[in-house]
Amino acid sequence: MGKLIVVGIGPGDYENMTVRADRALQTCDTIIGYHVYVNLVKERYPDKEFLTTPMTRETQRCQMALDEALKGKNVAMVCSGDSGIYGMAALIYELRGEATEPEIEVIPGLTAACSGAAILGAPLTHDFAVISLSDRLTPWEKIEKRLECAAQADLSIVLYNPASHGRPDHLRRACEILLRVLPEDRPCAVAQHIGREGENRRFYTLGELKDAEVDMFCTVFIGNDSTRMIGGNMVTPRGYRDV
Amino acid sequence: MGKLIVVGIGPGDYENMTVRADRALQTCDTIIGYHVYVNLVKERYPDKEFLTTPMTRETQRCQMALDEALKGKNVAMVCSGDSGIYGMAALIYELRGEATEPEIEVIPGLTAACSGAAILGAPLTHDFAVISLSDRLTPWEKIEKRLECAAQADLSIVLYNPASHGRPDHLRRACEILLRVLPEDRPCAVAQHIGREGENRRFYTLGELKDAEVDMFCTVFIGNDSTRMIGGNMVTPRGYRDV
Repeated sequence: MGKLIVVGIGPGDYENMTVRADRALQTCDTIIGYHVYVNLVKERYPDKEFLTTPMTRETQRCQMALDEALKGKNVAMVCSGDSGIYGMAALIYELRGEATEPEIEVIPGLTAACSGAAILGAPLTHDFAVISLSDRLTPWEKIEKRLECAAQADLSIVLYNPASHGRPDHLRRACEILLRVLPEDRPCAVAQHIGREGENRRFYTLGELKDAEVDMFCTVFIGNDSTRMIGGNMVTPRGYRDV
Repeated sequence: MGKLIVVGIGPGDYENMTVRADRALQTCDTIIGYHVYVNLVKERYPDKEFLTTPMTRETQRCQMALDEALKGKNVAMVCSGDSGIYGMAALIYELRGEATEPEIEVIPGLTAACSGAAILGAPLTHDFAVISLSDRLTPWEKIEKRLECAAQADLSIVLYNPASHGRPDHLRRACEILLRVLPEDRPCAVAQHIGREGENRRFYTLGELKDAEVDMFCTVFIGNDSTRMIGGNMVTPRGYRDV
């Protein structure tokens, strides 16, 4: 009986992968995933069987992974970032339902909140919220409510999927909601192509962020009440210096 | 001139460390950290100089790391989980201030939200909040407000530092706040000793979680509106099956 391992490969470079994720990809028979993520690992594990499906075919992709494992193969389903956070692990558990086979193992990986924060400075030293601006699977009203509550709670906020071709103005709309509660000068940042070629970071105030150019390779960070720029980095002190 | 690298070592085991974190610890001269975290890596990197300070001496520990780097040593400051999320990276940037030396590099690691979720199933497939119940550096009123807002926003919630000797009843108090908004039967879980000896998981309803026994080695997960138990695991569907 094969095993299905859901592997979070992190931002995409080998260095930011865990030892455990690397071993899983070394020892599996088949690597399945969205073609962009499969291409990130293909070179390093050339002797594997590779199966991919197009972007929005998540259910088909996960069912394929379960079927291959049931056939006796050791399958690694690769997810960028973490395997659970906006990843495929939940859908795989859903599709297996109450069945006990195939065995499923979830291997965590660095999500963009962690890997992005590290290139910006230290913006997430205190409580924070992670919110996706994609309304493909979530009504916009719910996203709006979450943004509003996160701002009222003085949580630092990390925005995933800030834009795509289909929704170029979501970041602007999100900023307008946040600005009902947060000041114009709240420190913000965009991390792009984290751990990949062209990695870069840009800093803004919340007022400026409204007009920032972002794409699907960007992760957006909004500071909390105590976040400030220190030595050119975005830093959220936790108060250790005061004790 | 030495360099100060702030290393997130993840939950504690080698397997869940990134390739990059492992390299940094292999190549540094000195490893500095809270003694519990230093002990987690001591065996694997025996030929290093080790410097530790007691638990609540964060400022002293980070200043020591900066000073050693200024003396010309390559210093690795180890943090459990991520180096930024409730880690030492921000304090190190604060202490360096506007100075440009020593060079600081932040290496991210698996925070307990990722590593804990992976052993529970897939509870964080959708938007979530990470909130610490430690009021050592944060007024309890602020923690209370954040819990209330996160519940109103239907965010999954991850609680760090759910208890310590000094505050055994914080989880109960947090649950009572959440129960003002969330139902008694909301799926919850506790992940303990993640990636370490004695790793275990326990599932509760929010009503039961009030009375759960937790310590400083526990991370607590509270599901959102769609979270449910599937095949004995805590799963938060994102809605892929409906598209």
